[in-house]
Amino acid sequence: MHKIITIGREFGSGGRELGKRLAEKLEIPFYDKEILTAIAEESGLAHSYVEEIVEGKIVHYYPIMIGRTFAYQDVSLFPNDVVFSKQSEIIRRMAEKGSCVIVGRCADYILRDMQPLNIFVYADLESRMERCFKRAPETEHFSPAEMKKHIQKTDKKRADYYQFYTGMSWGDKANYDICVNTSRLDIKRLAAGLAAYVKDID
Amino acid sequence: MHKIITIGREFGSGGRELGKRLAEKLEIPFYDKEILTAIAEESGLAHSYVEEIVEGKIVHYYPIMIGRTFAYQDVSLFPNDVVFSKQSEIIRRMAEKGSCVIVGRCADYILRDMQPLNIFVYADLESRMERCFKRAPETEHFSPAEMKKHIQKTDKKRADYYQFYTGMSWGDKANYDICVNTSRLDIKRLAAGLAAYVKDID
Repeated sequence: MHKIITIGREFGSGGRELGKRLAEKLEIPFYDKEILTAIAEESGLAHSYVEEIVEGKIVHYYPIMIGRTFAYQDVSLFPNDVVFSKQSEIIRRMAEKGSCVIVGRCADYILRDMQPLNIFVYADLESRMERCFKRAPETEHFSPAEMKKHIQKTDKKRADYYQFYTGMSWGDKANYDICVNTSRLDIKRLAAGLAAYVKDID
Repeated sequence: MHKIITIGREFGSGGRELGKRLAEKLEIPFYDKEILTAIAEESGLAHSYVEEIVEGKIVHYYPIMIGRTFAYQDVSLFPNDVVFSKQSEIIRRMAEKGSCVIVGRCADYILRDMQPLNIFVYADLESRMERCFKRAPETEHFSPAEMKKHIQKTDKKRADYYQFYTGMSWGDKANYDICVNTSRLDIKRLAAGLAAYVKDID
């Protein structure tokens, strides 16, 4: 049986690392940045532009009075929707190819008909700040206050993007099968444990 | 190393079953109703009375104007506090004896200094109703609407009790290390997976 695993994650929680390790243990593909590259290639939009849209840095708002009903008329006018539509297509194609781990990108929602195992990775702010300072060279010069703001802002964008396209609340445990808090637990061991659990499902 | 595992759970989610299976797999004691019995024995209060207090069915409210500050004066006047204090003492004693699984009773909070592995078990309302109809003879004559109300009422009591004594929000994933949703996942497999994970921690 195909094993499709989606990973939602708070910024700095180590969700990407957990997903990567899990995929390695299960010897199945791991999709993260590859999705962006494929969207850029297939849509003709610049990689950096796609990245900014997917990360919620660029939002093309719908006219206020018309709201989302406009989407039924000519959705392709809005780059956000072009990207989401392409993203959905690519993610579905990846999942149909076989077992895989997909990080972020509303994959839990996009693949809901395939009943993936949906994991959410989170941690307290303190340990996320610590991880960010250790792991991310582009933000390591931040002051603690700047890092806190950066984390909260990134999560807010992820939450808004998820909410907009899925109508569900990002990080709400009801939307996931397993939620793991990496504040005190070792990611390597968690990945090994999850891999053992997934292997056991047939 | 001692492995202390606490299980918080939504009513009807199968948290008790998960805890029991996990304890069996790990070959360590499982504490649930035993705690009530010990409280009754040691406090001299009737078992049924203790049960009603612990389940939040009886609440002795503090005088409104004095509030919780009163607790610093003569806490033993309030049966809820006598029970909570005895419960804390018993749970700590159980945990100090060695590895164990403890269900409910704010054990995650009571044992916070011992850094237990805190698990929360939840499920959507539909699957909890289904489980309740199958498993609980005393409520199997309920109509679906009655069962829904019963589940929501029981959870509300648990949430209030937890909030009152811990100051934290019951079921908020931030308070737990691992949260598992039993709506779609098999409890037996989850217990086996968690047991394998816990065994790996040294």
